[in-house]
Amino acid sequence: MSANCIFCKIIKNEIPSLKIYETSKTLAFMDIGPTAPGHALVIPKYHGAKLHNIPDEHLYEILPIAKRIALALDLAIESPEGEGYNVLQNNGRIAHQMVDHVHFHLIPKRDSTSGLVVGWPESEEGKAKIKEIHAKLEAAFKAVEESSPIKI
Amino acid sequence: MSANCIFCKIIKNEIPSLKIYETSKTLAFMDIGPTAPGHALVIPKYHGAKLHNIPDEHLYEILPIAKRIALALDLAIESPEGEGYNVLQNNGRIAHQMVDHVHFHLIPKRDSTSGLVVGWPESEEGKAKIKEIHAKLEAAFKAVEESSPIKI
Repeated sequence: MSANCIFCKIIKNEIPSLKIYETSKTLAFMDIGPTAPGHALVIPKYHGAKLHNIPDEHLYEILPIAKRIALALDLAIESPEGEGYNVLQNNGRIAHQMVDHVHFHLIPKRDSTSGLVVGWPESEEGKAKIKEIHAKLEAAFKAVEESSPIKI
Repeated sequence: MSANCIFCKIIKNEIPSLKIYETSKTLAFMDIGPTAPGHALVIPKYHGAKLHNIPDEHLYEILPIAKRIALALDLAIESPEGEGYNVLQNNGRIAHQMVDHVHFHLIPKRDSTSGLVVGWPESEEGKAKIKEIHAKLEAAFKAVEESSPIKI
């Protein structure tokens, strides 16, 4: 817990929120600045600014809860062309993070006027150097995983 | 597995890819159409088009693996104003999903010219009806969770 964190205050009920679901590790509640009707947040109760700050055991429940919010919002539309939704987690101001406590947005996308708008510039550098980047990343991942193995 | 799914073919090594890490349930590999250098994908091997199609046990590893990719890419920058990254999972064409096999994008955001561009229109309706939407969603979530409890 962090004393000045707005999401830690929501977890502790020090400021009000519209809670959807809660476990010992995870909280889901409404985003009060929605970009679409039904826009919800799923957060670990463990305080950390960015995804890599959160211990694995505080991450396991996040996607199962996000999934059930999509189902509860009737977003389980079978046609790929129909309604949809985005799951988004931002790290850093440059990446559109506004609150420094990890949060996953579950954003319905029912029409083109509401919900997340995705901009996707092509990366010429990313494409040209993909093999070089891959080789470095694969080796670095191995080192990270060996020092902190994934156990589930 | 789905016979015509490009990601299932990657899982089965029927088409080549630049793999980063693999377990019995999960695969991480390079996105061949990167929007930033280092753009990676984490996918469940279980075939399903959208998040709500994936059984919980095939979701637990996703975020721990995404987290380690961010670490391996040296994106663990402490300043919130510094470099960052986005984790994004799209469901449905309208939500920018291009391949109908659930995939999580790990997208570095090192500068304003590469990586995800986030558009975030305000939803007047979402704000005006937030209490009504919340009450309905909370009840619907309870029903979903009771019929399919989260166990971890």
